[in-house]
Amino acid sequence: MLPSIRCRRTNLIRRPCLSARLSTSSVLLANRAIVYSSFGNPSEVLSAITYPDLPPPPSKSLNVKYILSPINPADLNVIENKYHSKPSPVSSLSEGRHKFPEPHYVGGNEGLAEVTEVGPDVTHYKVGDRVVLTKQQSGTWASARTLHEDDVLKIPVGLSEVNPPTAYNMLHSFVEPKEGDLVMQNGANSAVGQAVIQIAARKGIRTLNFVRNRPDIDSLKNYLQSLGATHVFTYDDLKDKETVQNIKTTITKKGTSLMLNCVSGEPTKDMTRLLADSATLVSYGAMSKQPLILPTSLFIFRDLRCRGFWQSKWYEEHSIQQREELMKTLAELKLREPEYEILNLKGTASDEEVAQQVRSVIAKIQEGRYGRKVLLRFEPAQ
Amino acid sequence: MLPSIRCRRTNLIRRPCLSARLSTSSVLLANRAIVYSSFGNPSEVLSAITYPDLPPPPSKSLNVKYILSPINPADLNVIENKYHSKPSPVSSLSEGRHKFPEPHYVGGNEGLAEVTEVGPDVTHYKVGDRVVLTKQQSGTWASARTLHEDDVLKIPVGLSEVNPPTAYNMLHSFVEPKEGDLVMQNGANSAVGQAVIQIAARKGIRTLNFVRNRPDIDSLKNYLQSLGATHVFTYDDLKDKETVQNIKTTITKKGTSLMLNCVSGEPTKDMTRLLADSATLVSYGAMSKQPLILPTSLFIFRDLRCRGFWQSKWYEEHSIQQREELMKTLAELKLREPEYEILNLKGTASDEEVAQQVRSVIAKIQEGRYGRKVLLRFEPAQ
Repeated sequence: MLPSIRCRRTNLIRRPCLSARLSTSSVLLANRAIVYSSFGNPSEVLSAITYPDLPPPPSKSLNVKYILSPINPADLNVIENKYHSKPSPVSSLSEGRHKFPEPHYVGGNEGLAEVTEVGPDVTHYKVGDRVVLTKQQSGTWASARTLHEDDVLKIPVGLSEVNPPTAYNMLHSFVEPKEGDLVMQNGANSAVGQAVIQIAARKGIRTLNFVRNRPDIDSLKNYLQSLGATHVFTYDDLKDKETVQNIKTTITKKGTSLMLNCVSGEPTKDMTRLLADSATLVSYGAMSKQPLILPTSLFIFRDLRCRGFWQSKWYEEHSIQQREELMKTLAELKLREPEYEILNLKGTASDEEVAQQVRSVIAKIQEGRYGRKVLLRFEPAQ
Repeated sequence: MLPSIRCRRTNLIRRPCLSARLSTSSVLLANRAIVYSSFGNPSEVLSAITYPDLPPPPSKSLNVKYILSPINPADLNVIENKYHSKPSPVSSLSEGRHKFPEPHYVGGNEGLAEVTEVGPDVTHYKVGDRVVLTKQQSGTWASARTLHEDDVLKIPVGLSEVNPPTAYNMLHSFVEPKEGDLVMQNGANSAVGQAVIQIAARKGIRTLNFVRNRPDIDSLKNYLQSLGATHVFTYDDLKDKETVQNIKTTITKKGTSLMLNCVSGEPTKDMTRLLADSATLVSYGAMSKQPLILPTSLFIFRDLRCRGFWQSKWYEEHSIQQREELMKTLAELKLREPEYEILNLKGTASDEEVAQQVRSVIAKIQEGRYGRKVLLRFEPAQ
């Protein structure tokens, strides 16, 4: 055990860092990250690590501290090595002040962060700016990171949610529904789904929403309707001929021209019966873990068009001005955030305690019915 | 049995027609059609009927005699009542000269016909013109019909194949490949597939073709290559990692941007590994009788775009000038017709013999390995 000194002002412990065993310099072991060195079940492979404060950022880079970092379903797939975009391993979280014995990955893809220090040649960002990540898999489950300025996006004060861009762009990049039009979606209670409901409602676009059946279905329906959902049904309703006929007669009539899908599998196939000719089905997720299974006749005789949407690609293809314009538009919409739960990672807890806390929450999320999004909040480690 | 008189000049039998039992007039029982009165297995429900010559066509209509009428897989689905577009029952095949005791459907959707008589107010067609059908399910398995002029399309002399429009339009309506580009397709030995190969080859577009494995696979490969196919593989090859890697390294490289599908199911899914980002998959058939099954990730992360093509819809959406322009373009390409077999329905045979002949060929087609298209040719019935 290395000797440590408690700082009176910050109440943080100053300790010689790992590499300092050789250099004898000392830095603040103020940071913590949730990491893994090999792919596998997140509730088994994740650990927590404490690391020293960051050195000043290099040219065109920023140091940030994370305010909130969500645990998204896709993050678990990344750790299981079952996701399209792969994380890059890092050998250090605090260049020159700490080094992993072997390369590690830092969990997390999304996060709301605050700029704490700007490097040389950075003109677009200043200390105190709030930013989100536009680069894939940059490792947001950490209290502080050094990031390249091209990999972040400044967001207006008041906006702290990173899902609305997906919702907004899906409503504007394919078929652009007008006031009075009907948009259909599944996974309507997801973070994106809730944003879709609200953005559509602001524009007078009606929404036909589908969710999984559950014991408290009425309270979920009420909640989504309070956000502006026009209609809410369950996938089970699609198995009932009378209900489907009723939806066709009173709601969809000639069918809907835009369907947003984050589920795939059977429920999505059932929903396509409610589509209009030449409708567009936009997929942004596959929570059923099933492929998209559609009769070929839908494409041939009903001119169905299937597309996909990935916000990361949108960022890649749009300028910093366009990105900031989108964030401004979303801030002005003042969307209600989805219900979430903050998992506070206490500074007084040990790395093992923190890791255990994260792993057990993830194990519950993996059971599939956690209900609300979990956001990690790192207290300064001691 | 009604008395009949053989005509010396035409060698046809003159018989009082069914309705003539009342009217006592007599007409030529020169025509035959393959019909059914209820949906079901075509090798069971089809029958043949002899009917009188046609009365003069009404305003804006034509009488035609069919030269050749293909038996397409979709025709069998129509008879089974498993197809998107439904036929309309008819109460007579020769208005005023014959009447079915109950409404019947006439088989067949495609056909090459010759105009034999034009009604009042027809200016665009003359006797001797060759026409194909643009209206769905108008019943082409017949020796002669009366058709509205809006439901046919004049085709240039020398063109007698109705599949090339599908091939041509799929190569020109979505991603338009340029010289040197690569187009991938399955069912490459289908009539449309063979037209795709030839049209692409004329423009210097390379084709990557997939077919089912079979004992004489090399002779099929040679045949398709003689049409201009650049590469021919089997669906089995897609199961072999080394072959797939080899195709990627030497043929597709960055992937192909246009894939044409008439198979669906597993082979189609396997082929998508060879697609470029933002590729378009155009479906025009589902010979596997399986749905289109695709990982949702292809849409989200690789921007796959799925569309469908239906030539009948193209006709609906294009003017008579555009339709004829297409036919002219295709005639100029001088495509080699796919191998076919003509099923000659003899005039001397009885209705029951003709029906038996058609049903037994269809039973073989239903076994799925008939190999070549069957075209019906009606001799004048006696």
